[in-house]
Amino acid sequence: MLERYLTPEMERIWAPKNRYDQWLRVELAACRAMEERGIVPVGTADSVAPLVTIDPRRIDEIEAITRHDVIAFLTHVEEQAGEPARWLHLGLTSSDILDSSFAILLTDAMSLILQEAENLSSALREMTLKHRKTAMIGRTHGIHAEPTSLGLTFALWYAEMRRNITRLAQAKKIISVGKIAGAVGNYGNLSPEIEARALEQLGLTPEVVATQVVQRDRHAEYFTALAITAGTIEKMAITIRHWQRTEVNEAAEPFGKGQKGSSAMPHKRNPILCENITGLARTVRGYVAPALENMALWHERDISHSSVERVIAPDATSLTQFMLRRMTTVISGLDVFEDRMEEHIHLTGGLVLSESVLLEVIRKGVPRQKAYEAVQRCAMASRSGSDTFFQLLTEDPLIREKLTPQEIATAMDVEHHLRHVDQIIERALNT
Amino acid sequence: MLERYLTPEMERIWAPKNRYDQWLRVELAACRAMEERGIVPVGTADSVAPLVTIDPRRIDEIEAITRHDVIAFLTHVEEQAGEPARWLHLGLTSSDILDSSFAILLTDAMSLILQEAENLSSALREMTLKHRKTAMIGRTHGIHAEPTSLGLTFALWYAEMRRNITRLAQAKKIISVGKIAGAVGNYGNLSPEIEARALEQLGLTPEVVATQVVQRDRHAEYFTALAITAGTIEKMAITIRHWQRTEVNEAAEPFGKGQKGSSAMPHKRNPILCENITGLARTVRGYVAPALENMALWHERDISHSSVERVIAPDATSLTQFMLRRMTTVISGLDVFEDRMEEHIHLTGGLVLSESVLLEVIRKGVPRQKAYEAVQRCAMASRSGSDTFFQLLTEDPLIREKLTPQEIATAMDVEHHLRHVDQIIERALNT
Amino acid sequence: MLERYLTPEMERIWAPKNRYDQWLRVELAACRAMEERGIVPVGTADSVAPLVTIDPRRIDEIEAITRHDVIAFLTHVEEQAGEPARWLHLGLTSSDILDSSFAILLTDAMSLILQEAENLSSALREMTLKHRKTAMIGRTHGIHAEPTSLGLTFALWYAEMRRNITRLAQAKKIISVGKIAGAVGNYGNLSPEIEARALEQLGLTPEVVATQVVQRDRHAEYFTALAITAGTIEKMAITIRHWQRTEVNEAAEPFGKGQKGSSAMPHKRNPILCENITGLARTVRGYVAPALENMALWHERDISHSSVERVIAPDATSLTQFMLRRMTTVISGLDVFEDRMEEHIHLTGGLVLSESVLLEVIRKGVPRQKAYEAVQRCAMASRSGSDTFFQLLTEDPLIREKLTPQEIATAMDVEHHLRHVDQIIERALNT
Amino acid sequence: MLERYLTPEMERIWAPKNRYDQWLRVELAACRAMEERGIVPVGTADSVAPLVTIDPRRIDEIEAITRHDVIAFLTHVEEQAGEPARWLHLGLTSSDILDSSFAILLTDAMSLILQEAENLSSALREMTLKHRKTAMIGRTHGIHAEPTSLGLTFALWYAEMRRNITRLAQAKKIISVGKIAGAVGNYGNLSPEIEARALEQLGLTPEVVATQVVQRDRHAEYFTALAITAGTIEKMAITIRHWQRTEVNEAAEPFGKGQKGSSAMPHKRNPILCENITGLARTVRGYVAPALENMALWHERDISHSSVERVIAPDATSLTQFMLRRMTTVISGLDVFEDRMEEHIHLTGGLVLSESVLLEVIRKGVPRQKAYEAVQRCAMASRSGSDTFFQLLTEDPLIREKLTPQEIATAMDVEHHLRHVDQIIERALNT
Repeated sequence: MLERYLTPEMERIWAPKNRYDQWLRVELAACRAMEERGIVPVGTADSVAPLVTIDPRRIDEIEAITRHDVIAFLTHVEEQAGEPARWLHLGLTSSDILDSSFAILLTDAMSLILQEAENLSSALREMTLKHRKTAMIGRTHGIHAEPTSLGLTFALWYAEMRRNITRLAQAKKIISVGKIAGAVGNYGNLSPEIEARALEQLGLTPEVVATQVVQRDRHAEYFTALAITAGTIEKMAITIRHWQRTEVNEAAEPFGKGQKGSSAMPHKRNPILCENITGLARTVRGYVAPALENMALWHERDISHSSVERVIAPDATSLTQFMLRRMTTVISGLDVFEDRMEEHIHLTGGLVLSESVLLEVIRKGVPRQKAYEAVQRCAMASRSGSDTFFQLLTEDPLIREKLTPQEIATAMDVEHHLRHVDQIIERALNT
Repeated sequence: MLERYLTPEMERIWAPKNRYDQWLRVELAACRAMEERGIVPVGTADSVAPLVTIDPRRIDEIEAITRHDVIAFLTHVEEQAGEPARWLHLGLTSSDILDSSFAILLTDAMSLILQEAENLSSALREMTLKHRKTAMIGRTHGIHAEPTSLGLTFALWYAEMRRNITRLAQAKKIISVGKIAGAVGNYGNLSPEIEARALEQLGLTPEVVATQVVQRDRHAEYFTALAITAGTIEKMAITIRHWQRTEVNEAAEPFGKGQKGSSAMPHKRNPILCENITGLARTVRGYVAPALENMALWHERDISHSSVERVIAPDATSLTQFMLRRMTTVISGLDVFEDRMEEHIHLTGGLVLSESVLLEVIRKGVPRQKAYEAVQRCAMASRSGSDTFFQLLTEDPLIREKLTPQEIATAMDVEHHLRHVDQIIERALNT
Repeated sequence: MLERYLTPEMERIWAPKNRYDQWLRVELAACRAMEERGIVPVGTADSVAPLVTIDPRRIDEIEAITRHDVIAFLTHVEEQAGEPARWLHLGLTSSDILDSSFAILLTDAMSLILQEAENLSSALREMTLKHRKTAMIGRTHGIHAEPTSLGLTFALWYAEMRRNITRLAQAKKIISVGKIAGAVGNYGNLSPEIEARALEQLGLTPEVVATQVVQRDRHAEYFTALAITAGTIEKMAITIRHWQRTEVNEAAEPFGKGQKGSSAMPHKRNPILCENITGLARTVRGYVAPALENMALWHERDISHSSVERVIAPDATSLTQFMLRRMTTVISGLDVFEDRMEEHIHLTGGLVLSESVLLEVIRKGVPRQKAYEAVQRCAMASRSGSDTFFQLLTEDPLIREKLTPQEIATAMDVEHHLRHVDQIIERALNT
Repeated sequence: MLERYLTPEMERIWAPKNRYDQWLRVELAACRAMEERGIVPVGTADSVAPLVTIDPRRIDEIEAITRHDVIAFLTHVEEQAGEPARWLHLGLTSSDILDSSFAILLTDAMSLILQEAENLSSALREMTLKHRKTAMIGRTHGIHAEPTSLGLTFALWYAEMRRNITRLAQAKKIISVGKIAGAVGNYGNLSPEIEARALEQLGLTPEVVATQVVQRDRHAEYFTALAITAGTIEKMAITIRHWQRTEVNEAAEPFGKGQKGSSAMPHKRNPILCENITGLARTVRGYVAPALENMALWHERDISHSSVERVIAPDATSLTQFMLRRMTTVISGLDVFEDRMEEHIHLTGGLVLSESVLLEVIRKGVPRQKAYEAVQRCAMASRSGSDTFFQLLTEDPLIREKLTPQEIATAMDVEHHLRHVDQIIERALNT
């Protein structure tokens, strides 16, 4: 986790202190469940809890000798709580603690991410409504196509973010699964009842069938949900970067007071927030392959997944949260240059409305191929500058036989293209 | 798509003929929707349909000139249906046809995959019940851990396949989305109503907000669902390969009559089906990154996703279906060597039951660390061959003070470890 | 391999017929090496060779029974060559044949790729020289930065392609390694001398240490070289797509006669070749992960790499060759609109020359920060349209105190920026 | 970078302090080059250098306002060095500093990695020589194949590490490239001569053609070299994990004093170092895709590569160095159980020598297919336990007609398989 891309809330989740605190929480939950079953003296957990304050450095010291993190942790707890601590971890295996607490951390991280996703979603909704009627040229292949509205782009992103929120929520649900089932998952010296009661206290449900560990298809789904979400944010970032390029200049990400564009070129206002997000999306995508490779552990588990998760879990969650927050800033503060958008619609002299003309010609009984060739002829001529598209259409032998100049003008009306926008937006905002 | 890894049903879906047939189906559905709205003469679709028989080679010929596949297709249709064909594609853009028909192909492919997933699931259920009581040694880190049952491994795979079936079904749902919304997705010369009616005939729902294309987060989710499923199958394959290794030899994948193990070593019975599956899982995983990169198209679309999808859609679906079918064969025909499994439980002279002894010692009031050291001492001594673990335990000063030989023997009882198996299996089979 | 992205030469390499022909070639080479050592009767290979004509379908039939491809192949050979055929494959293991012939195929495929890379390289060299003096605006972050020359972009691509040619040639060398060393690589019934003589006939060198197979780090390097090359081609494609966007319109990929831009928008000239290449780059990149995963085979080999390679070797090589060829077409036929390039240099009213002014001010003794703020002030004012950048500079209190209008004009001279272009280009073309 | 997987030397390289120190070093080198050309007063660099002590926190503070790291750095330098500092960064762009200093960091990191790679290589050489004659069973598909020597496995790894060292050294060379060429790479206010002299002081060579940045194909090659190396280390790790599994138990990674195997199962000696390495290899592989995606920057650069590199450069280099060092520890301290190896050669009752028998039968004139079937018949019967393989061979009607029991015994001699080992090892150690 780079500090640069880290929020304080996310830092707190992945801090060593919190990690160990969650271990203790799991141990105490298991202990309480065993107290209820009469296996452990009633009150043990309550007597241990106040005696222990986790000191990660002390655990590190012990681990340097034992080379086993959970044993180091237990030793540290025993150092402080003394005799009653022997009732902890009874019949448990390290992974009971590690996987259950990891589920808590991943769930908590996802809650933060979902909150940011909701914030971005709200910002998009607002911009959708605000720019519902802002006409802009739609572009396919980077080429002007037909008019559309800026609000529709925000609506598109909004709808996609809703799908992502569904994915993230589903990932949160599938990861909120713990395991207190012993060395090979068959409750050696435990029982399904103890597990259920312990996990209930932690807001988790039991793994349906576990080996020594919770199964890693869950984690794989979690990381793919982050990567797909990152892909959506990247999509926004790339569009905004396009809008902000000098020749387009239809919108620009917010530019802070005191911010400097370039050490060499003081005039520049660069879309660095969005470029930064583009790169982070690549980074988050890169975590999917290791997460998928983590699934096929040997037999009842090997520990190869662990080093992967130590790296990618904090990194993927923190970067995704950061991207969402940064993109919310960009969307909320986006400078929109409506004049430029208006200007661009007319940049090609009406060419972008050629499809409507084509359709009118076909409706008047001309076969598609013939009609297409006629319209393309005018379009190409107009592009090479011989006259405006409108003028050329009115002079084309085939077209003027079928359409009056008035009919051509009507076919080329911009407002026509926006007539369904309200309906689409309503559909989007109701998803 | 390699023939080697292709079922006839899947081949049919991705055949050029079927691809174009679906294009025609979408064109006709849109035409019918426009007939209903009075835009196109009633009966047009019905009159065109019987006149057209798709010939992919003819379309290829035309495309060689036009360099545009949909125009080549429309020309081909017009060649056969004549004048009424001009009513087709009215106001549509190529992607209306391409994306809606692609949704049909992906949905159909997923139906085949789901069927195979159900078959594998059934085979696993059967083996779970059959081997409910088959004791085997659980292994963590490749090292014997504690006894468990073979049925539990099948139950684990069953439960994971149920999760995959949920993922695949969700992917099918999210991909069953078409789009008849024109060049930039705002229904230029169409309407939401026409789209809804057209897609309804095809079993699809409309994209909430489209650009020129259906949004690629849907496809990304589709390919990640395949990759996670492939990961599960790989997990099974790797476990079976471990079981089949010479020194373990607890189970073996089916070996066909006439099959030859090795050109050089005639005695060999190699787990080649499972090795093959392992490689295919890598291949399917490899399609996730391109699918994720496909999300961030420029503005209202660029066509970069297309070449990716031409390659990965047939490949990823056919390989996943093939893997599922092959794994079903492996599971159904798996040779299980129960004697070897039984033998292995005792291979370490009882060491694998050390945890139970440890727990008993702790229960008798010995602090965890002291107890752990005593048991580990005996375990290490037993491993280096000085005596059986049981014998060493009965002679250890600390342990013999706390436990009678009878108590030690009870703690080391194998059946004890399987007492919750029925309960876990019931839980799994009910997911 | 999709026919769409396949050249006839590459198709020939990966055709089943050629694959088996190479198997036979390896068998005969090994046989001849053994004839020299007196192990096999002299003349055996020469007597077998003319008797055998490979029929892939017949091999498929036999494999359906034996489920072992090499045994099926040998049976097919024996069916035709009769008794002397028993001298073939003597002491060999299947992988001796498979890996040595795979090396031949990969080497041959790389030769085709290298040829295309040289063609692209030549096209780039030509365009470098042609556009050495064509001024264009350099863009960073999508924002106009400083003037540069178009030729420099081609020189950049040329230099990068030379690096790729080095990578591809190195990959060819590292893959031109065969293995005739028996079941576990220690020449069970063979010898290093037989291997060396056999491989020499095939243009291969022996694997330094083999297991049953040639080691897969070689293949991993091969596929990464393809992916890096694909990345370079993608870089060109994306730049050209940017040049071709409506608002930029500085260059356009070739547009075939009869080609149609869009079924709905006849005026459109879309950069579809470059978009197609962009997608193919993603696809080729996707093959790296499986190739890397293929490295860690179990013990003296498992066969999991095989299914991966069956898919990715033909696909990655054919797509890369296709991309190179397509990009050569694009570069050679690129339409360059020099007027537009000229126009864009002046689009920002001289802002893009602000750095030169900044430097002059600093040279006159103003501290960097103060100078920067002054120039940025003028730049921002000019951007918001109050006056031209030049005019604002001449009026700025700090700047006009240090620079005369003439000095400002000199600092803003375009030619100045191109004075080192020839030198850079010479450096590039000599790499 | 996780502290857990970080060496102090590598930490030093990527520390913020060192990063800024390298920036200053580049600035001073450029300044000195300009002093030589008479652009900057002689002695400027020497007078600035002693006045500046980098304080990363102060730079962070300034960056919080300017949102531009290099400007923040320059301000920090100016705060300390005063007036002469205005001569720094003259005509430079941020990337001149960033990319040149990044090249230094990557080069230094690679030097550490190469040192570890040499250490691992030495450990492998030693083990190759030590176990040259240690017979072990070769395994293909996880099944016993033919005898080989343990030394050969080390020789294989040694040879592969030598190839990796070549790759890493080549990557180091290709990354040791800086750039002092201004905003768009054409030396706006600089010159190739200044660049050459500046970079020479830093041990770098100039980028052949640059945009604003050094081209990212170089970085892509760098990260793929790390990933291939990680793949080799993973290969070793997986083999050792196989050796250490309970049923095989032929070798074990070192087990520290005080180390604890499992919190629940005190007897366990788990290959956790190798499992950890397996996971880290997945992680390092994951960085390849983002590095490849970084290549296609827009026009003369966009800054999307930057956030990727901030994450993956420290992570990929530190993890690779850590893996190499850890694997050196494992190899040097590997416990080899030669008795077990010996035992396993005979585990299948001679079956693993069946190929030699097969070849003898063929040499006696029996067609391959007939011979194969006879030997396989005996092998299968022996596997099902009816008698030893040797006994069954002597009784087989076809075989006993061709071979005497003595000839069979000779064919089955173990030493025979190791006769070329010395030659292979010599070949390997001389690469």
